[in-house]
Amino acid sequence: MLPEIKIENRIWIEKNGQAFIGSGRITLLELIHETGSISKAAKKMGMSYKKAWTLIKSMNSQAETILVKKVVGGKNGGGTLLTQRGHNIVRQFRELERKSEDFLTEEMKNCCIN
Amino acid sequence: MLPEIKIENRIWIEKNGQAFIGSGRITLLELIHETGSISKAAKKMGMSYKKAWTLIKSMNSQAETILVKKVVGGKNGGGTLLTQRGHNIVRQFRELERKSEDFLTEEMKNCCIN
Repeated sequence: MLPEIKIENRIWIEKNGQAFIGSGRITLLELIHETGSISKAAKKMGMSYKKAWTLIKSMNSQAETILVKKVVGGKNGGGTLLTQRGHNIVRQFRELERKSEDFLTEEMKNCCIN
Repeated sequence: MLPEIKIENRIWIEKNGQAFIGSGRITLLELIHETGSISKAAKKMGMSYKKAWTLIKSMNSQAETILVKKVVGGKNGGGTLLTQRGHNIVRQFRELERKSEDFLTEEMKNCCIN
């Protein structure tokens, strides 16, 4: 049986030397969008609310416009949601991950690490 | 002043679901080549000899032919060196890292995560 060779990769983006966006932070944004709540999103990640909030503050303060905002009242009684910018960054980052994975998978076909 | 945006990435290769080659393991191989000695290489990495030896055993047993071999005697009094296969894997992996970095840097130019 031929061995299964697989290339894995992790990407992240730093801004002025500080962690800005990475896979975990993007998952947090996706879960905030899905649940409408920081505490529910944090819980799904096995993360404290405090930790999640720290990550959101870090992203919001580094992004050109905030990625996550709290809304009060309204027909759904308020909650937390992603701004348009937040949605864009999630999409762009996941696309970058996909492209990077495709690139590496293709490279591995022409490569002989085995 | 424009913020400095930088994309970082880490790649590693798994074989049948097990860690096979990654940046740390490749650095260990490079240092073995440089020093001719597992213990000197381990020391430079702040790693125990035992840990280095475990990593080498893992790579040697998974590779089609071994990457690291011990030589006894000879004009240099023996030591540890990389096989041709070991040299090739170091070169191929570093090349893959470089290509991946170039690819992502290029992608980031056309991307608007900032």
